[in-house]
Amino acid sequence: MSSTDSSKVDVLVIGAGPSGLMLCTWLARLGITTRIVDKRFSAINSGQADGLQSRTFEIMDSLGIGQDLWREANHMLEIRFWNPDKDNRLYRSDTIVDTKPGLSRFQQATLHQARIEDYLLGYIKKHSSIKIERGIMPESLDIDMKLVDAQDEYPVSVTLRHLPPQSPDLNKAGDSNGASTPNGLFRSNLTADTVDSMLKAARESSHSHTELVRAKFVVGCDGAHSWTRRQIGSVMEGENTDCIWGVLDTIPITDFPDIRFRCAIQSASGSMMIIPRENKYVRMYIQLTEMKEGGQACVDRSKITQDNLFAAAKKILAPYNFSYKHCHWWTAYRIGQRVGSKFSAHERVFLAGDAVHTHSPKAGQGMNISMHDTYNLGWKIAYAVRGWADRSLLKTYVTERRQIAKELIEFDHRFARLFSGRPAKDIMDEEGINLETFKAVFEKGNLFSSGCAVDYASSIIVSKPQSSSRNGSDVQDEAEIAATTFHHAEEVVAKQHLATKIPIGQRIPSHKVLNQADARPWHLQELLPSNGAWRILVFAGDLQDPAQLKRYKALGEALSSPLSFASKSRLGKESLLESLIEILTIHSAPRAAVELLSLPEIFHPFSDEYGWDYNKVFVDDVSYHEGDGRAYENYGIDGRMGCVVIVRPDQYVSWIGDLEDSKEMERFFSGILRV
Amino acid sequence: MSSTDSSKVDVLVIGAGPSGLMLCTWLARLGITTRIVDKRFSAINSGQADGLQSRTFEIMDSLGIGQDLWREANHMLEIRFWNPDKDNRLYRSDTIVDTKPGLSRFQQATLHQARIEDYLLGYIKKHSSIKIERGIMPESLDIDMKLVDAQDEYPVSVTLRHLPPQSPDLNKAGDSNGASTPNGLFRSNLTADTVDSMLKAARESSHSHTELVRAKFVVGCDGAHSWTRRQIGSVMEGENTDCIWGVLDTIPITDFPDIRFRCAIQSASGSMMIIPRENKYVRMYIQLTEMKEGGQACVDRSKITQDNLFAAAKKILAPYNFSYKHCHWWTAYRIGQRVGSKFSAHERVFLAGDAVHTHSPKAGQGMNISMHDTYNLGWKIAYAVRGWADRSLLKTYVTERRQIAKELIEFDHRFARLFSGRPAKDIMDEEGINLETFKAVFEKGNLFSSGCAVDYASSIIVSKPQSSSRNGSDVQDEAEIAATTFHHAEEVVAKQHLATKIPIGQRIPSHKVLNQADARPWHLQELLPSNGAWRILVFAGDLQDPAQLKRYKALGEALSSPLSFASKSRLGKESLLESLIEILTIHSAPRAAVELLSLPEIFHPFSDEYGWDYNKVFVDDVSYHEGDGRAYENYGIDGRMGCVVIVRPDQYVSWIGDLEDSKEMERFFSGILRV
Repeated sequence: MSSTDSSKVDVLVIGAGPSGLMLCTWLARLGITTRIVDKRFSAINSGQADGLQSRTFEIMDSLGIGQDLWREANHMLEIRFWNPDKDNRLYRSDTIVDTKPGLSRFQQATLHQARIEDYLLGYIKKHSSIKIERGIMPESLDIDMKLVDAQDEYPVSVTLRHLPPQSPDLNKAGDSNGASTPNGLFRSNLTADTVDSMLKAARESSHSHTELVRAKFVVGCDGAHSWTRRQIGSVMEGENTDCIWGVLDTIPITDFPDIRFRCAIQSASGSMMIIPRENKYVRMYIQLTEMKEGGQACVDRSKITQDNLFAAAKKILAPYNFSYKHCHWWTAYRIGQRVGSKFSAHERVFLAGDAVHTHSPKAGQGMNISMHDTYNLGWKIAYAVRGWADRSLLKTYVTERRQIAKELIEFDHRFARLFSGRPAKDIMDEEGINLETFKAVFEKGNLFSSGCAVDYASSIIVSKPQSSSRNGSDVQDEAEIAATTFHHAEEVVAKQHLATKIPIGQRIPSHKVLNQADARPWHLQELLPSNGAWRILVFAGDLQDPAQLKRYKALGEALSSPLSFASKSRLGKESLLESLIEILTIHSAPRAAVELLSLPEIFHPFSDEYGWDYNKVFVDDVSYHEGDGRAYENYGIDGRMGCVVIVRPDQYVSWIGDLEDSKEMERFFSGILRV
Repeated sequence: MSSTDSSKVDVLVIGAGPSGLMLCTWLARLGITTRIVDKRFSAINSGQADGLQSRTFEIMDSLGIGQDLWREANHMLEIRFWNPDKDNRLYRSDTIVDTKPGLSRFQQATLHQARIEDYLLGYIKKHSSIKIERGIMPESLDIDMKLVDAQDEYPVSVTLRHLPPQSPDLNKAGDSNGASTPNGLFRSNLTADTVDSMLKAARESSHSHTELVRAKFVVGCDGAHSWTRRQIGSVMEGENTDCIWGVLDTIPITDFPDIRFRCAIQSASGSMMIIPRENKYVRMYIQLTEMKEGGQACVDRSKITQDNLFAAAKKILAPYNFSYKHCHWWTAYRIGQRVGSKFSAHERVFLAGDAVHTHSPKAGQGMNISMHDTYNLGWKIAYAVRGWADRSLLKTYVTERRQIAKELIEFDHRFARLFSGRPAKDIMDEEGINLETFKAVFEKGNLFSSGCAVDYASSIIVSKPQSSSRNGSDVQDEAEIAATTFHHAEEVVAKQHLATKIPIGQRIPSHKVLNQADARPWHLQELLPSNGAWRILVFAGDLQDPAQLKRYKALGEALSSPLSFASKSRLGKESLLESLIEILTIHSAPRAAVELLSLPEIFHPFSDEYGWDYNKVFVDDVSYHEGDGRAYENYGIDGRMGCVVIVRPDQYVSWIGDLEDSKEMERFFSGILRV
């Protein structure tokens, strides 16, 4: 029986991994009609990704699930380096801190991908009726070029095939090598793509049917073997190496003293990275030197077994003992770094996550950057669907995330080679990798791998001062820059020097401030939940000073004008979002010196139903129980004069100006918002 | 249809409010067969309690639900005092901190009782199959005195009546006074008991039936009108006043500037307490002066209406405006303080919560102390049911919680009178209450009302040094002291001076320490989850010092002896609790100077299945991201010599001694544990 239904949807998401689910958080929160399909009949329950960046926790916290994840995760505080001494015996050569102190209120940690997906699903369920539809594969995709620029049309047609129920479960191991532990080789990059053969088998089945879906936007979050990527003619560019590494998840029984620390081990018998995980588990990344030969695309998988990985690990860790009773998962992969040639077709079909960047997993980046892709994309699609912004806003997804994908690939290139090289024997050994070099690359890599150093280039949503608009990297196409910095943005002047430690283009760092109305301390980022709103952060300076209070009041008047974007972007109480722009004040006068109700109404709006808003004005002052945030100092803002910061819905900084620069703000918003 | 079934259960809990649910958390965690019944057909959904003490958050955190509650609750950081000036105009006379900084990692906060119950239910569901059975009232209770001292018998028989489905829902308002807001008068102490009339109506119904339950233990958590209390002949002793106060839960629309702070207002028109709550709500406790006359037990409820409360509140707050569109709940109560004459019958039937102490709600104590009652009782019942301790352990419930009930009543007596009095007009006004006195009582009361100052007297589970064994209060019966300090306890010598800031009898304060194995910071209390285990905290001192290391190793040998309680109390991996005694080390040497695996095995036990235990040894050192806990200094422990602290399953401190005092520890445990 094969029938074809037809339906419409705002957004069709292909693939329900971390990237697809993160996309759905925005769509759920902003009420966008969405379908999400996945060819797998069940969610993953072992193996795959485990590393969580500081920035990922910040994002999760903006969804209200970061604290739970943080408590459940295994925190990695310190990295221990182990090297061979002159007698080739392993010794602990150095210890460094993992996440740089002060960078974020969260540090690098590990938690199983399945738990991350659970939390994201919980969020989506809370905010919408979006459900994952499983056992479904896309079969054809067409873009109607006549409709591509129309606001309310559905230009993308996708045929979805519902797989017969007896299809193989893609989350079960393809072969067991005689062992009982699930292995992940069938999903690794050592394995050929099975999409076509699955589709063929389904077509021949009498228990499969298709349906036609017409969508405004389609997003391919369908992994390294992305079907969507093929449809839009995007090609993975980069290189593969012959270095093969194994991954082993066990509860280790060992006298190796640093097993609960992240360790970089370069022994005479090969390299290993130790990643401690939750529930007593430890992941080992194991260099499989004996498999270095042979350059064919798919190696003989039968040579890679759990026993081989175990033997290699024991050899590297010797003279320490290592055994285990519990192994949760194992796999192997070939090191390579590749980026998709296209991230989008006509800003109607997008690719995200592994579909556009693949690399080695050791640095725990993949799941994070994949989620950050769609965290960047989701609110922009919602704005386009709702008509709050022109579709051209979506070009910034491509420029911003291609830049990051390329940085990721460069990072991984360095990082992976560092690890697969052999340690230098002495100072004259030019081929081997010097311990100091190793550490230096590692430390630099740690800033990148925290996810907190992402620095988006100038665009209509990032107004960098002219001099720094290109931030020295050549990762962007000239054509893309032209497209995204179109008309308005170049007129907007930002003043980075007013907040020297809030770099425009980066996510706003978080320091503690107190609510003026009840003295409760909050991390600034906690005031910026991912609800779709832009924020104007008014660092109002010292409101005890009459001159400064006057400047603040003048800004209030400008923002209160019915012609201001702050006024025009109000959506009303019945909407999911009351306004596209929220105004928050952080002043620097002593808390006791300021009376909230004496400040201009726009900064703590009145409602006939709820009275004054007590959650808009904050102060940089000492808290009773949680110390002193010293926000102005930490943000590099003058305590008397303050400044104004525009923050995007995804917490990245767009613009910085003076309290008098309301015209610049208007120009900035007029380049983006359609209200 | 009326039939009588018969069944057996370890524990029958009567009443599913916060007190009954907290009891079930222990019973659920320790696998005790339990039934919990409630006459109400639905859980509460408006009104009732809202205040949460610091200590309550600590307890909730020991159940793994404290952090979620903390995030959801409204935090109260500061108290503002308002008084009439010489022209009788209200002014802000003072500001003080609410919870004393450093007392706890949690501060006073508010969250609706229904949410607390939700979290407790979630915990119970996670750990057991215990379910609340609703629409059930007990009808008779008998204790078989022949069986009362037998370990495995069921001496308490209770007949339970299943109410007909059409019984009135006790959580709906009895009368509406013409207003649409639910009111709580029907549950207030202005209303007569309806238990008998409900039972009578049920007996006459053809849709009601009974069953007979035989239990080892029965606990009455059935509130101020406790049926259980009557069965065991316990009488409420104390006094009632004629002071009537109203309670109004609204989202206030007001220009009163401190509406989001806890305020104590004593205006010329009467007193008011403002308690800011979650979701924009504010609770007002309003003195109803015009209703002060008439002393009958139940006043004419028709005189107390929502409009009357609103009018009184407006008058007190004048000249500030006050109105509202949203009112969630309102009620009124008569101030009084009473304590039950008996808390137990034969250590087989117990009373807890409002069933044994009633008082005025203004200080936000009731729900907390009711939950603390059963938090004290639950693990003791579980120990008795499992045979891990003699039933005489349960006598300490009575002594400890009666002491607290009496302290509560004394506190409330002072606190309520303070509030119902009128403010002094000037220094010569002897009848009025002086502002300074008011503040002083308030500040002192705050320590009590944090719940962190509870100080249990000497007993078999609290070994205070002889000199301080009676802590100056006369709240205990001599007979009770004799019963609970029987044989062993008096031989056990504790050394308070070794940890001057860990008072024996009080809950152990919490400071941060680091895990030796992975450098992760933990609050000490986080290492003491409520799982039923006693803890031996070995403050091992400076393990860099060979002499100190020798002392530590000697202690390890003593604890490792097969005859030690640490050995004998092992229950095995298959049990819900691996051992009745867990040994944790906190040393004070630099973290980097100690290798975990070089320490004696007993302090980080080895398992054939899981390898070494990495979660038993901690260190007082600086963390990378969360500062310096300075645990030894904050605990008043010598950094070189250390000490040993025994902590009860409920986090209260039992004993302190030297590393050489293993014989004293053995004597201590031999007075309690039956292993």
